[in-house]
Amino acid sequence: MKFICEKNILQEAIITAQKAVTGKSTMPVLQGILMSVQNNELTLIGSDIDLSIETKINVEVLEEGKVVLDARLLSEIIRKLPNSKVEIQTIENNCVEITCNKSKLTLVYLNPNDFPSLPEIDENSIFKINQKTLKTMIKGTIFAIAQDETRPILTGVLFEIKDSKLNLVAIDGYRLALRSQYIDNETSINAVIPGKTLNEVIKILEDDGDVNITFTSNHILFNLGNTKIISRLLEGEFIKYNSIIPEEYNLNIVARKEELLDCIERASLMAKDGNNNLIKLDIEDDVMIITSNSQLGNVREEINIILQGQPLKIAFNSKYLIDVLKIMNQEEIVMNFSSSISPCIIKNKENDDSTYLILPVRLATI
Amino acid sequence: MKFICEKNILQEAIITAQKAVTGKSTMPVLQGILMSVQNNELTLIGSDIDLSIETKINVEVLEEGKVVLDARLLSEIIRKLPNSKVEIQTIENNCVEITCNKSKLTLVYLNPNDFPSLPEIDENSIFKINQKTLKTMIKGTIFAIAQDETRPILTGVLFEIKDSKLNLVAIDGYRLALRSQYIDNETSINAVIPGKTLNEVIKILEDDGDVNITFTSNHILFNLGNTKIISRLLEGEFIKYNSIIPEEYNLNIVARKEELLDCIERASLMAKDGNNNLIKLDIEDDVMIITSNSQLGNVREEINIILQGQPLKIAFNSKYLIDVLKIMNQEEIVMNFSSSISPCIIKNKENDDSTYLILPVRLATI
Repeated sequence: MKFICEKNILQEAIITAQKAVTGKSTMPVLQGILMSVQNNELTLIGSDIDLSIETKINVEVLEEGKVVLDARLLSEIIRKLPNSKVEIQTIENNCVEITCNKSKLTLVYLNPNDFPSLPEIDENSIFKINQKTLKTMIKGTIFAIAQDETRPILTGVLFEIKDSKLNLVAIDGYRLALRSQYIDNETSINAVIPGKTLNEVIKILEDDGDVNITFTSNHILFNLGNTKIISRLLEGEFIKYNSIIPEEYNLNIVARKEELLDCIERASLMAKDGNNNLIKLDIEDDVMIITSNSQLGNVREEINIILQGQPLKIAFNSKYLIDVLKIMNQEEIVMNFSSSISPCIIKNKENDDSTYLILPVRLATI
Repeated sequence: MKFICEKNILQEAIITAQKAVTGKSTMPVLQGILMSVQNNELTLIGSDIDLSIETKINVEVLEEGKVVLDARLLSEIIRKLPNSKVEIQTIENNCVEITCNKSKLTLVYLNPNDFPSLPEIDENSIFKINQKTLKTMIKGTIFAIAQDETRPILTGVLFEIKDSKLNLVAIDGYRLALRSQYIDNETSINAVIPGKTLNEVIKILEDDGDVNITFTSNHILFNLGNTKIISRLLEGEFIKYNSIIPEEYNLNIVARKEELLDCIERASLMAKDGNNNLIKLDIEDDVMIITSNSQLGNVREEINIILQGQPLKIAFNSKYLIDVLKIMNQEEIVMNFSSSISPCIIKNKENDDSTYLILPVRLATI
């Protein structure tokens, strides 16, 4: 194997493939990146079995071949090289030689035949979505996945395609996040993608261009052109999320999002220590009073709102409200309530692409 | 106590005083900041006994008085308030009320009489130095203080004034860092400032203006005008650093600093795992070859130098060389050597304000 490539281009490709190298596998070869040189291309693959990332760049090929190189070390070496052409070739003793200007490094390589092959995926059944849109949808839901493994299926995000609409759903038992987008596709899909995969996907998705997505019974493939991300799906049945979201409410309020977020963040300062982040909302005619208290002191915040319905007192874990308000991107939001023990629904005032549900905290007396 | 103040100004003052609040003291009152309102001023003091920081701002005083407020909580609260006027006043039940627009917080205060008073320091014996110069000198030495407490005196930086020159010196047993600056002062001083203090001092020093420095037998006072930093000195005798620095050498080389740093950083990549960061320098006529090797591979770097004297092979812990080269700010450096087992001295080529000494690693055979 022998090829020549610009340092910056190589570095970027390594960073991409390396995102799938978690170092958690027991197979030593999976701490490496598979580099294959063929035709005019260098293909780099990183994998931890569950998640694999393949990326291709054009290089000047002098001799075809393949090797596996330690991902962390390779990445650090290439990063530290001067901005110039890098030549990589296999030499004796299972080593590659990396040359760049006056720097010469040799690095032991691992056997490329030990590297597991990628799952075969037929890319015929595809739907297409704008990369930025998908990134926003993932960021808008992933924070609500379950952090513990009690119900493994909840550590992922449901990708549902139904009625020409893509829905992403995350539920952790205390809250639900739903983002929706119309897409030009008639198929019906129900697949749960591990949160770990999606955390890497949002780092790779760019702000323009489309991504093609293919589902098989066990895998999802994100094809960005030069880069493919393949992930195992989570097994099991996801919660029927539609039955959780109430369809009717007794009252709704409209509030300015930034102002509400600031108030809740200040109130949460006093709700931290041994207090479950508890804050109380007192919804009155034109104002909402937000209070919290602890041994150290208390906070009272007041915000103007528009109320339809009867006044209500209700309490929440402030963290859940803050997570939602931070990720919403419209100026005004609508909050729907039924009672102090029923879930609260938060949506944008102007559009219907985001639905958040949060369970209140029951208090003996509010 | 009652005063009104702009949020931004108050926030900045709290951040300054808070740098002395380490939370490591057993006295609960030292987790707080002492706020005293008198005349037209608010004085804030943070302290962990060893280190105290006092800062003053002008505020609109409605009633004089003083309180101690939890530093972390106060700082978070003020940071989250809107950019507007903040009113703070004492109310019943040992509380202060903080009001800003429609936000109202109450916070329990601690007894200000429990707060230890600052050491009395007569500011007559003073020397003056440019803040930026002092910051550069501290940053240029502090990295070389000892990290363990085996010899407590080495966890500080020596401030020596001799022959109208301020010298800052740090030694950790393997290396020495010395920065010098002529000052307009005839006194003679020999004091060792804790590294912990200086780490906070460099965060507070600005890029223009002077700082007045006073020494007593036990303390140092940095007076920046509105802010005073008072620190205990370390007790004991510092190493006579002059006797360590050799006066004669057998060879010296001139090298471009950035290029040398890059080469050593790349070489150090292979010197990490279980290898004591060992790199070898092979100084020849016009070039220096830098090599390192490990089980994973090896590196060979070549850099053009100007050599006066005989060729030499010598080995170092690359970390020590990298620390020095990163902090030096001139384009070309001079390295002086005597033998493969004698210390190496690194200076700027163009000026004499920096002297670094590094012990080599003895090898059976290089």
